[in-house]
Amino acid sequence: MPAHPADSAIYRGLLGDEETARLFSDSSEIRAMLLVWGALAKAQGDLGVIPADAAAFIERSTREAVIDPLGLADATAVNGVPVPALVAAFRKAMEAPDLSQYLHWGTTSQDIMDTALALRLRRVMALWDDRLGALIASLARLADAHADLPMAARTYGQAATPTTFGAVVAGWGHPLLRHRQRLSELRSGLAVSLSGAAGTLSAMAEGPKVRAAMAASLGLRDPEHSWHSDRSPIVDLAAWMAAVTASLGKIGQDLILSAQTGISEVAVEGAGASSTMPQKQNPVAPSVLVALARLVAAGSGAVTGAAVHAQQRDGSAWFVEWLTLPSMAIATGRSLALARDVADRVRPDASAMQRGLSQDCGLIMAEAASFVLARQLGRVEAQASVKTLSKEALALGLPLTDLLARDFPQTDWSAALGGSMSGTAADDARAFAALARTG
Amino acid sequence: MPAHPADSAIYRGLLGDEETARLFSDSSEIRAMLLVWGALAKAQGDLGVIPADAAAFIERSTREAVIDPLGLADATAVNGVPVPALVAAFRKAMEAPDLSQYLHWGTTSQDIMDTALALRLRRVMALWDDRLGALIASLARLADAHADLPMAARTYGQAATPTTFGAVVAGWGHPLLRHRQRLSELRSGLAVSLSGAAGTLSAMAEGPKVRAAMAASLGLRDPEHSWHSDRSPIVDLAAWMAAVTASLGKIGQDLILSAQTGISEVAVEGAGASSTMPQKQNPVAPSVLVALARLVAAGSGAVTGAAVHAQQRDGSAWFVEWLTLPSMAIATGRSLALARDVADRVRPDASAMQRGLSQDCGLIMAEAASFVLARQLGRVEAQASVKTLSKEALALGLPLTDLLARDFPQTDWSAALGGSMSGTAADDARAFAALARTG
Amino acid sequence: MPAHPADSAIYRGLLGDEETARLFSDSSEIRAMLLVWGALAKAQGDLGVIPADAAAFIERSTREAVIDPLGLADATAVNGVPVPALVAAFRKAMEAPDLSQYLHWGTTSQDIMDTALALRLRRVMALWDDRLGALIASLARLADAHADLPMAARTYGQAATPTTFGAVVAGWGHPLLRHRQRLSELRSGLAVSLSGAAGTLSAMAEGPKVRAAMAASLGLRDPEHSWHSDRSPIVDLAAWMAAVTASLGKIGQDLILSAQTGISEVAVEGAGASSTMPQKQNPVAPSVLVALARLVAAGSGAVTGAAVHAQQRDGSAWFVEWLTLPSMAIATGRSLALARDVADRVRPDASAMQRGLSQDCGLIMAEAASFVLARQLGRVEAQASVKTLSKEALALGLPLTDLLARDFPQTDWSAALGGSMSGTAADDARAFAALARTG
Amino acid sequence: MPAHPADSAIYRGLLGDEETARLFSDSSEIRAMLLVWGALAKAQGDLGVIPADAAAFIERSTREAVIDPLGLADATAVNGVPVPALVAAFRKAMEAPDLSQYLHWGTTSQDIMDTALALRLRRVMALWDDRLGALIASLARLADAHADLPMAARTYGQAATPTTFGAVVAGWGHPLLRHRQRLSELRSGLAVSLSGAAGTLSAMAEGPKVRAAMAASLGLRDPEHSWHSDRSPIVDLAAWMAAVTASLGKIGQDLILSAQTGISEVAVEGAGASSTMPQKQNPVAPSVLVALARLVAAGSGAVTGAAVHAQQRDGSAWFVEWLTLPSMAIATGRSLALARDVADRVRPDASAMQRGLSQDCGLIMAEAASFVLARQLGRVEAQASVKTLSKEALALGLPLTDLLARDFPQTDWSAALGGSMSGTAADDARAFAALARTG
Repeated sequence: MPAHPADSAIYRGLLGDEETARLFSDSSEIRAMLLVWGALAKAQGDLGVIPADAAAFIERSTREAVIDPLGLADATAVNGVPVPALVAAFRKAMEAPDLSQYLHWGTTSQDIMDTALALRLRRVMALWDDRLGALIASLARLADAHADLPMAARTYGQAATPTTFGAVVAGWGHPLLRHRQRLSELRSGLAVSLSGAAGTLSAMAEGPKVRAAMAASLGLRDPEHSWHSDRSPIVDLAAWMAAVTASLGKIGQDLILSAQTGISEVAVEGAGASSTMPQKQNPVAPSVLVALARLVAAGSGAVTGAAVHAQQRDGSAWFVEWLTLPSMAIATGRSLALARDVADRVRPDASAMQRGLSQDCGLIMAEAASFVLARQLGRVEAQASVKTLSKEALALGLPLTDLLARDFPQTDWSAALGGSMSGTAADDARAFAALARTG
Repeated sequence: MPAHPADSAIYRGLLGDEETARLFSDSSEIRAMLLVWGALAKAQGDLGVIPADAAAFIERSTREAVIDPLGLADATAVNGVPVPALVAAFRKAMEAPDLSQYLHWGTTSQDIMDTALALRLRRVMALWDDRLGALIASLARLADAHADLPMAARTYGQAATPTTFGAVVAGWGHPLLRHRQRLSELRSGLAVSLSGAAGTLSAMAEGPKVRAAMAASLGLRDPEHSWHSDRSPIVDLAAWMAAVTASLGKIGQDLILSAQTGISEVAVEGAGASSTMPQKQNPVAPSVLVALARLVAAGSGAVTGAAVHAQQRDGSAWFVEWLTLPSMAIATGRSLALARDVADRVRPDASAMQRGLSQDCGLIMAEAASFVLARQLGRVEAQASVKTLSKEALALGLPLTDLLARDFPQTDWSAALGGSMSGTAADDARAFAALARTG
Repeated sequence: MPAHPADSAIYRGLLGDEETARLFSDSSEIRAMLLVWGALAKAQGDLGVIPADAAAFIERSTREAVIDPLGLADATAVNGVPVPALVAAFRKAMEAPDLSQYLHWGTTSQDIMDTALALRLRRVMALWDDRLGALIASLARLADAHADLPMAARTYGQAATPTTFGAVVAGWGHPLLRHRQRLSELRSGLAVSLSGAAGTLSAMAEGPKVRAAMAASLGLRDPEHSWHSDRSPIVDLAAWMAAVTASLGKIGQDLILSAQTGISEVAVEGAGASSTMPQKQNPVAPSVLVALARLVAAGSGAVTGAAVHAQQRDGSAWFVEWLTLPSMAIATGRSLALARDVADRVRPDASAMQRGLSQDCGLIMAEAASFVLARQLGRVEAQASVKTLSKEALALGLPLTDLLARDFPQTDWSAALGGSMSGTAADDARAFAALARTG
Repeated sequence: MPAHPADSAIYRGLLGDEETARLFSDSSEIRAMLLVWGALAKAQGDLGVIPADAAAFIERSTREAVIDPLGLADATAVNGVPVPALVAAFRKAMEAPDLSQYLHWGTTSQDIMDTALALRLRRVMALWDDRLGALIASLARLADAHADLPMAARTYGQAATPTTFGAVVAGWGHPLLRHRQRLSELRSGLAVSLSGAAGTLSAMAEGPKVRAAMAASLGLRDPEHSWHSDRSPIVDLAAWMAAVTASLGKIGQDLILSAQTGISEVAVEGAGASSTMPQKQNPVAPSVLVALARLVAAGSGAVTGAAVHAQQRDGSAWFVEWLTLPSMAIATGRSLALARDVADRVRPDASAMQRGLSQDCGLIMAEAASFVLARQLGRVEAQASVKTLSKEALALGLPLTDLLARDFPQTDWSAALGGSMSGTAADDARAFAALARTG
């Protein structure tokens, strides 16, 4: 019974992401917590905090145990955390009370759950890094291939000056390089949590050493202090997800606009059909990118608010994270996978782009014309003249260049405005492609 | 693989709501769409838009058809909507192409999906209305029972003046009366959607009559125009969910504060245990109420943003609704059920409340004392005097009344401050209880 | 030093609204608080709560007092509320301590400030109601004038089926009728606040009668209980502002899309110029409508969160309202004024709309053609045939109707598809106009 | 007429920040734009893009010009940007058309405005860095001074285990070290914007060199490509502001809770007075910290959404930044200054903390007791025994240690539970202080 379309059989393919979702499944969460307990027991055994035989037994058991999530439901509903029920179920499954009593020794629910989350995030972030890499590579190919393909740049939806499709793609790609760099920082910042009931390791004299050992064995950072109530690592992750999905949403938005009937400069293959209109080629995937960005931004706001976390643990603030992070992560994963898929299906239409450059009487050349004229009239008067001529061109339906030739016959307008007029666009496209390859 | 804890076996009991969730399940959504097609066919048959035998056959089939949600996944991922796949699967299941071709005649995906949503919301809202009614009744009993139970009112967390627990409960209940009234308005506003491919019913000359007939048979309102791109009914619903969960979150927040160690004025039976601290009685349920409020507020922001809905249908804006409404609705349902459950488990502790009134040297009587003194000193000087005495009382650790008696011996302070001093609190509590019973 | 562009000399004309802002000015706030004290003193005098001469003197003084806002700054920074400083300043200005001591008798800061807010909101809402009325009237004229003007409806940015410009305008207008109705409800719900230090009127035995009298004299509702910690009226107002600005943002979004180079179906006169591109006609005003909607939605989320208001007064939650409501209100006011201004400057271009209908090989007729064909082929096969022909048309660059005529010569296609094909569009436009006039 | 309380004479001291606000004033914005034009002209003159005399004249003029913000209002309202009006006003002021025509040569509004923003942000961020440094130093002193001061750690508001006040303060400080590190990264990432009308520098062949020279002279980074439509730097800044104010809001929240009547473990000197209650010492400053966090989180969501920025410039998305960034920045500045101020006024009350440790029958020792008992009973049975004794202690009102002594007389409980029992708390406090000094 899905609260979220990513959990729906119908909508999973549209709005979900199996690979990311797998790491947020009940069984994955239980498995990660068992792994944490195994690493804890090992470290505690090695350091003499708990008996060596108990440590070995617990560690071994964590690899074999199979715990039914459903069996944890009732106690979780009462306790707010699944850990007490899971400790009990796991101890029972171990069938060796003398040894299993050392499970979860000196630690608290939040240590186990936050470390288990960090473990899963490490894998999620590796997956995302791969996807970002593949997406950037796709965009680099696209930018390179179309570095010189001229099209109209648009500001406020209005034709501005010429650019190239490659430059537009480079503009999509640059923020992703930034996001990938940041992802790598966030990933290496993922930390073990081990600070006991209230952040002081009061039930484990060797706590700091155990924490260091656990961090080493689990491949996480040792924070060297408690982060129970410092949620800034989670906030930073949420902000990253919001930023990256927004950058992908921008790609989606641009594609929706480019694919509009009457513009049709870029198509995305495999567009969606309508239930009643036989002709429809809806830009479904780009629309999903925009929607996911909106979802993740909203979630990020809630996660940020939950960093106003009361005292040494704040149940309500922590629950907010549980209610939002998985869906945000799945949306992020989906967005990355879909953007890459879209990038590979993008089809620019050179002739439509050419039409885009010449429509509205070729007014897109107005700025360039004003700089040509500035040499003889000065910038201010040149700008005013071109403005007047632009209006006249629209009113008469004549090309701006015709009117320029009429009023300023001494200038060879076809030479003056005959180049690509797209400035650094092609260079920018190729520079991004090069950067993406080396970055 | 849950994107949302309400879809998790582990967390469902804590953060989910089976009854609300049932109406957002895949099968429930398919069932609702079939029901809409049945009503559409019936209306179209009655009005001669489609052949009577096709209408009867389709309507009958909608009641019997069983469609596998999984079979819709691939096409939904491409088309963005499940309707084309569902039309095809249902037509196939009907095994009578001559008749089944009249399925979905002259309508569009959004008509079917929005009407199916309205149908399910009608049931969800009936469920919520029942829960609100039960919750209000619980609060009314509580307010009545404890109308005279004195406790300290607190502003900024500081003891302010005396009130009664019944008055506090009445304060929780009043906004719920308002929300229930609004829920009833929203419920009666739920409308059928039938306006065809782009809002003009262009493929159905008798469209307005069909819409009216469908509205009547489905028990929904006939909007008499298209609401494809007017999402204000959804925005209003989202805002309602945010408002009601915030009001319930306030109850949760107050209970967390009242249950704090060192205050302990109100306990909620059945508190949560810790995995390591044997003494803990965590206010889990109140904390969930706060968390759900934060979730729904974030979702409401996203839904509101999606009302900036482009042109005649905006895929991305619509997807935002799908990504947020179900989890918001389930959170709302959970919040209502949990709040009622909490209301029935609230246990005020009269002696702790009495301690709360006398602590800090009984400074809670300072305002009252200042009004007594105002009769002889004037208000301004009285306030200043009591302020000075309040500081002295704290410094010396003596009751404020002792210092008042010392400096103003002519006043009989035990008489002057001996009443309940809680003003209209008891009356307010009983007035709410009475209003709740009649409202 | 503007924290908000509405307070900036440069940006005020773009993003501010003088008339709404006036009611949130320092002097307006002080004036409103004085007015509340006047009404309070009058009611208390009439009911014998304070001496009649003091009541008369205070009431008279409230009309004459001029208080310097700057003088309140330091104390407000310490106390969190301006009331203590304002009480002191006003008492001092009255120069009659025996009488002025009765100022603010038995009440608390929040009573005065919330009532003063309600007073100002009443005027703001009247202003908005006028603007909504004028806007709806403009849209009604527009819908009526262009009820029959054909244009392409668009879904996902793609041409869907024909509609008329009047129908599009009607689609903009319908939610405004809804919002105006709700505004009227919210306005009549504006209530006086009078419940004393902690909601119990403990310092005023005749409190409920005073509250009723104040409500009557100030033209506000008597809530009959405290709403200090029930912020749902504020939440509902914030939600309304978010809903109405979203509906206006939708108008802006549609206009931005319609004005795009290459589409140019609707222009808004008085578009913005660029600093460097002489030809630019930027849809500045429509863009502002979209931006204001985003701002208000964000603010509404914060206000809703602040309804999780702790105990009998929650300073931080209340401050959140102060930090957001004025800018939201000014944005709402600006949005309403600007939308009306835009509505009066909208210029549809019939020939561009005609081009929009015929482009892409006239595929916009595909659904209609499929229904024509359905008579001979059945719906399913007809839809499939038209889909195939649509693709062929695009590939060959031929009108769809040519291919239909080629393959299905027995149908008179120019007759079959020669009408407006826009269904109820014209009727919908006129129905809205009629409704707007009577509503 | 303030849209935001930071612009109000009354509220500025409470919710504003003069030093940050100064950089967002109209005159500061104009000054920064002039500075950008000066640097642009200089670079263009040096590279031969414009005549050297024009360059020198323009640069000199930018230092002397005084432009009235009000004079830009009308044109800004039409154009959406102040640049066209400012160019005209500045050219007019220069009174040398031949030279002033080279002002703003080959660039666009967004280049000038975004670079001017970066310039001001650099100063704002330097200010914030100083404040963060001072705040961290204050917290370090506090943590050091109270490293051993025992108090109850609280989870869910319930006493958990002992900690020390120094450790709590260290918990406040750690995220600030992280935020300061990130601030330094963001600051060094501030970039010049120079890419012309639509991101291609089409009107300036030497554009990239000019950009590099400008970056060098203004002390900003050269991005080497356009960031007109890549808003991730702004999004990252907004996220940082939200994260840091949330961390400061957590300090505020903890202080509100610690200062509650009945707990009173920490006071903040200079608390706020009530208008009617003489005894009140409201934690106004901590409440402001919480409120500012909520405001900035909401703003961050809006800014993140605005990164879904259409095409080469999206007016509405850009306006959203203008509507939110200044108030967010001022709130961040205020929060930093206020937190530091609060840190210096925090007064822990050792005896109240001692009471907090002993109340509720000393149940805070339950976890520790369970580990003592675990040696003889095993962990599971020990936990269960202490749970049972905890309930009995509460029911009888007896200290838990008395019951432990009764049932387990062989253990010397006063020795076993007689230490600080606060684990690493003191070490953590000192480690933070050391880190803060070196960091």
